[in-house]
Amino acid sequence: MKNVIIGQSGGPTAVINSSIAGVYVGAKACGAEHVYGMVHGIEGFLKDQIVDLDQYLDDETKIALLKRTPSAFLGTCRFKMPAIGVNDEVYEAVFRNMEKHDIDTLFYAGGNDSMDTVKMLSDYAQLHGKRQSFMGVPKTIDNDLPVTDHCPGYGSAAKYIATTLKEVIRDNESFGVKKPTIVVCEIMGRDAGWLTAAAALAKGEDCSGVDGIYLPERIFDVDRFLDKVDYLSRNKSSVVMAVSEGLKLEDGRYACELGADAQDRVDVFGHKQLTGTANALIKLIGQRTGCKVRAIEFSTLQRAATHIASLTDINEAFTAGRMAAEAAAAGETGEMVVFNRVNRRGELYRIEYSRFDIHQIANGVKEVPQSWITGDGDDVSAEYLDYARPLIQGELYPFWVNGLPKHLILKELIASNAVQP
Amino acid sequence: MKNVIIGQSGGPTAVINSSIAGVYVGAKACGAEHVYGMVHGIEGFLKDQIVDLDQYLDDETKIALLKRTPSAFLGTCRFKMPAIGVNDEVYEAVFRNMEKHDIDTLFYAGGNDSMDTVKMLSDYAQLHGKRQSFMGVPKTIDNDLPVTDHCPGYGSAAKYIATTLKEVIRDNESFGVKKPTIVVCEIMGRDAGWLTAAAALAKGEDCSGVDGIYLPERIFDVDRFLDKVDYLSRNKSSVVMAVSEGLKLEDGRYACELGADAQDRVDVFGHKQLTGTANALIKLIGQRTGCKVRAIEFSTLQRAATHIASLTDINEAFTAGRMAAEAAAAGETGEMVVFNRVNRRGELYRIEYSRFDIHQIANGVKEVPQSWITGDGDDVSAEYLDYARPLIQGELYPFWVNGLPKHLILKELIASNAVQP
Repeated sequence: MKNVIIGQSGGPTAVINSSIAGVYVGAKACGAEHVYGMVHGIEGFLKDQIVDLDQYLDDETKIALLKRTPSAFLGTCRFKMPAIGVNDEVYEAVFRNMEKHDIDTLFYAGGNDSMDTVKMLSDYAQLHGKRQSFMGVPKTIDNDLPVTDHCPGYGSAAKYIATTLKEVIRDNESFGVKKPTIVVCEIMGRDAGWLTAAAALAKGEDCSGVDGIYLPERIFDVDRFLDKVDYLSRNKSSVVMAVSEGLKLEDGRYACELGADAQDRVDVFGHKQLTGTANALIKLIGQRTGCKVRAIEFSTLQRAATHIASLTDINEAFTAGRMAAEAAAAGETGEMVVFNRVNRRGELYRIEYSRFDIHQIANGVKEVPQSWITGDGDDVSAEYLDYARPLIQGELYPFWVNGLPKHLILKELIASNAVQP
Repeated sequence: MKNVIIGQSGGPTAVINSSIAGVYVGAKACGAEHVYGMVHGIEGFLKDQIVDLDQYLDDETKIALLKRTPSAFLGTCRFKMPAIGVNDEVYEAVFRNMEKHDIDTLFYAGGNDSMDTVKMLSDYAQLHGKRQSFMGVPKTIDNDLPVTDHCPGYGSAAKYIATTLKEVIRDNESFGVKKPTIVVCEIMGRDAGWLTAAAALAKGEDCSGVDGIYLPERIFDVDRFLDKVDYLSRNKSSVVMAVSEGLKLEDGRYACELGADAQDRVDVFGHKQLTGTANALIKLIGQRTGCKVRAIEFSTLQRAATHIASLTDINEAFTAGRMAAEAAAAGETGEMVVFNRVNRRGELYRIEYSRFDIHQIANGVKEVPQSWITGDGDDVSAEYLDYARPLIQGELYPFWVNGLPKHLILKELIASNAVQP
């Protein structure tokens, strides 16, 4: 292992920087001379925008601060690699820049779309007899990567969602009026309901929990939803529902398209940009029940709230990065690090790290099992709770400076963000 | 001091329970036999719904847990006392219940409207020669009570807002694309911009801060706002604006009424219920700039996030409660505890506690001084930062149980919330 480079891609998480730290520490331990970072992922690397991470991570305090820094320290991008043979200039630029800096391994931390980049680059290398290696490091709050038991980023987002819902429920319950305020909380997750399922974690001895959990894995029946809310509004003094942004109706439309605000934008990967599910639903609820209504979108807060990240998640994200470095040093390529849960149900939580062929992972989506969706499609099972509870354990407190969490900044990122006139 | 009772009223804060703890500890130290709590404020007390707090706060761990519990532990209400002489049954019910339980002092923790309740009760007592005392304990995230330097609840909400904005800005900056996503964060505060001003605290060595701060103390000029956003969108790779929910236009309408979703509901105090300012603005921004837009409402999260409360705020809220108890024991009535800042600018932060005539406080609103609003009405001054920074210092971590903050619950509140058929 000579020099290596790491990039971050897709939506940030609370712990993606812990994976950067893990790759850095692992690669250094495996003898890497330089560990570079791409500024804004592969898009920046195409323009040779890189930094030498030794400048930023040369002591343990800085690595500790990086673990406490939200969002993508190196910057991120949403860039889709072209089909091989169509626009090979993109590939040639990547390999040219790798050779220029004598980089033999490229690490990429991301979700489904980002793993497609790893797959394409390793395919291209194989096709053209290139010697460089490509390793994927899992990252997604959505928790929807195939093969791996779960994904770094999920535990922290789940901890944020459950903590915040406990607070929201408390707030709403304190009024105790006959006609309750009906709160609809909108949670991220386009195709998979893992994040919305995390709402179930709020329930406990000291919290009555949310009153309904609606995942995109089930067709959303608006009329039954409204019937339920209407019933609750007449029998409870607080109603809090958790809905996925990606809820779909029987006719194929998204639930957010029910509203007048329906947006129909598409990102570079062809995914519809969804927002407004909760806002669309509270209008219908208000009309039906006459109650006061409130929509709360957890928005980017749920992926950026490193101040309340799960220590388990941080440690696993770090180890995933370190394992990727060790695997690459051992000659592996075209793989992603995966987590295998080795304890049985009821036993103490334990995972083992391995790697898996990137072709089985890229562009795939792992949904919440149908058998874990219970009730009238409005709750999740004890199996889910057993699965998720270990992932939210532990805290790593911020470095507080002047009352606020301190973050590590990359000056090259700030510079690259200045728009050229 | 024989028996006393305390109630909570109005919108909850992250630290209103610390004031309950302070009254409890203070009243006990002053010899109170029983410290009762009203379930759902004066509204519950009218129905004689009270609890004996000895059952809940009989050891230091429980008091410590109460300080870490969000929202109103006793439940809250929004209840307006009728004019004296119009419906005196309400007053008679209060005094009857006080006499029934041999209660000589009533403490009420709340904001502007709640202090009106304290005023009316103490006026009624004076008018009718009643011997009971009435003390106000300040509480409001809005920070808009007159006379006092600041209000318990504000520091914690400000800490939440600044911490979350640092995370939101980080998240948005990580993309670094030419056409930025424009984020508009909507912050509470109907008539006073104190909370929105807290957005300024996010700026520092490691954060470029928000790009504009708009308080309700200034008429909101939509065209100038859009001009500014448009300019920023062409010169920055991330744009994050902070706006108050209470922004008003030149023609007297609220900014949220710009949208198709305009709501026009009024609460029992005659205040319009505002929401949707950010959503209304992002539509205009999207049309003007063609950029991707995102509205983030901090909603009830900003008043309920005890998991990131300010220790300074918690301690001051506790002391305000204790001081109210001591003042009542000394024979005072018809007052609210107030904070006086005694350090000069540049000196170490220090406050002294005193009390002030409730007539000068009830129903009043303290706005952000015009001289603290700078720039083109889109920023706040160094004076504001010097004022607010001490209030967000310090942390009191939750009691974490199974990965989530533990809260103290009042079983009578849960029981009272069951709607009678």
